[in-house]
Amino acid sequence: MSRILGIDPGLRITGYALVERKPSSIEPVLVEAGVIRLNSKLPMEDRLAQLYTELTELIVNLKPTRIAVEKLYAHYKHPRTAILMGHARGVILLAAKQNDLVIEHMPSTLVKKSLTGYGHASKEQMQRAVQAQCKLAALPEPPDLADAIAIALTCGRRL
Amino acid sequence: MSRILGIDPGLRITGYALVERKPSSIEPVLVEAGVIRLNSKLPMEDRLAQLYTELTELIVNLKPTRIAVEKLYAHYKHPRTAILMGHARGVILLAAKQNDLVIEHMPSTLVKKSLTGYGHASKEQMQRAVQAQCKLAALPEPPDLADAIAIALTCGRRL
Repeated sequence: MSRILGIDPGLRITGYALVERKPSSIEPVLVEAGVIRLNSKLPMEDRLAQLYTELTELIVNLKPTRIAVEKLYAHYKHPRTAILMGHARGVILLAAKQNDLVIEHMPSTLVKKSLTGYGHASKEQMQRAVQAQCKLAALPEPPDLADAIAIALTCGRRL
Repeated sequence: MSRILGIDPGLRITGYALVERKPSSIEPVLVEAGVIRLNSKLPMEDRLAQLYTELTELIVNLKPTRIAVEKLYAHYKHPRTAILMGHARGVILLAAKQNDLVIEHMPSTLVKKSLTGYGHASKEQMQRAVQAQCKLAALPEPPDLADAIAIALTCGRRL
């Protein structure tokens, strides 16, 4: 059985979601999801240290075999945001590597297409697709949490 | 006495340099400099883990009180390189924070101006300025090593 931890990296909110893919089913099942909130008033290094510590704890507790992290693009609309997310992503990949996880880099267009059929779906379309496909009672909030679930599901479906 | 570790971050070569600023002098003195070379054929996460391990060893051995790391800009000419450098920089800031160093984010224009009087000096101008100001027998190579020395000197001069 594969246990996949999906991560939507950010220096304010990092979404995470654990899904399981059983050998008897092609569709992964959502086990747990949440967000790591970092105080944006703190210096970058404090936020990175908190992200590293909390993610390492999650890995130890949730025992994933694989981690799927959203990929970043050079043609990102907000280059400053992309550089800051690069810092967060570096620390996330470090924690994953130190815990011997298989690492998958997931393009966001692939994730959006897997959930909605459309590679440029909006945040709200992604939230609605995740709600429907995981049969959740409420819309998953914040969008970072929905994105993390979508990343984990997409990785699980492609195994 | 301040011991400042200057860092020029990169996923192929990260330059480092230790300078000391004695209370009796306004000009910092170069103690040691070198580079951490990462194998660009390895996956990103392996390179980040190697960078983190080697930098942590350097901090333990060189015992700096302060670390000066080159700042990244959104209007960077090569956005892909800037995002990749963001990953390296995230891991560097994490190692610095975990070792309780004071962290200074150094704009490259400030460093270039401190060494050459000109905020847009070329790599070779920086190498020549570092060679002259540190009275080195040879041109410091590669440029990443010269940049790390320049970053540490600039930080030391501004204390």
